[in-house]
Amino acid sequence: MKKTVLSLGLLLAASFVSADNIRPESSVEYRQSAFRLMEFQLNVLNPMHRSQAYSEEAFAYRADTLSRLGALAHEGFTEESRNIDSRALSRVWDSREDFDQRMQTFIEITANMAEASKAGNNRETRDLFRQTLQSCRSCHDQYRLD
Amino acid sequence: MKKTVLSLGLLLAASFVSADNIRPESSVEYRQSAFRLMEFQLNVLNPMHRSQAYSEEAFAYRADTLSRLGALAHEGFTEESRNIDSRALSRVWDSREDFDQRMQTFIEITANMAEASKAGNNRETRDLFRQTLQSCRSCHDQYRLD
Repeated sequence: MKKTVLSLGLLLAASFVSADNIRPESSVEYRQSAFRLMEFQLNVLNPMHRSQAYSEEAFAYRADTLSRLGALAHEGFTEESRNIDSRALSRVWDSREDFDQRMQTFIEITANMAEASKAGNNRETRDLFRQTLQSCRSCHDQYRLD
Repeated sequence: MKKTVLSLGLLLAASFVSADNIRPESSVEYRQSAFRLMEFQLNVLNPMHRSQAYSEEAFAYRADTLSRLGALAHEGFTEESRNIDSRALSRVWDSREDFDQRMQTFIEITANMAEASKAGNNRETRDLFRQTLQSCRSCHDQYRLD
């Protein structure tokens, strides 16, 4: 259910990000802003993961926020911003389908993590948290300048 | 209902933003990132407002995103960041209660706007959109350096 809503959101979002709405330089700032906010959500989730506080409401709130910010980060990778200097490798645009799939997977894992946390499924939440970190790492390895 | 969820989120959020999680300089970047993302949501909403596309799903999505980002922007105004250079006037911390109330009002107006849009109440959505712009403006007038 949640997954559907988010995918729809993303779909709608994608159709609105165009040169009319956002300059190439701005879309770099836009995705960087989203990633900065995402980093903080992870900084909150990390110690909760260490203390296994998976069913706290704050865990679900941060996981859900992470998922929604992921959708915003994704829409910042506009075609027009391809040649603007940033840490994003040109591979993002060369392997567009794979990149989009990875972003979508991140959005879904984190949305599912929020649901699992709300449902009190600690084991599932922990597994999804590990998948979240793995999702970040593998995408950075492929698509981000070190 | 939505209002309750958001207020709870904010409450939980507030309890997690502390020197342990976020350095003063980072909390300035954090709120600036949130405001940058908010600005874009408004850039998408504005032409939809002009064409009265209040009941489009994208309208509700952007309104909801705006509300959630408002909660993130709010938590970036940490006590510790008071003396870090930014456009925020010291009045933010001197009139803390009024400032918090205004941010909370913004979060609620935009959440209600998302609900009104989803319910297809065009007139209510339009009124809430005007209240949203007014809420931005009046808070900037009071608390932001020109």
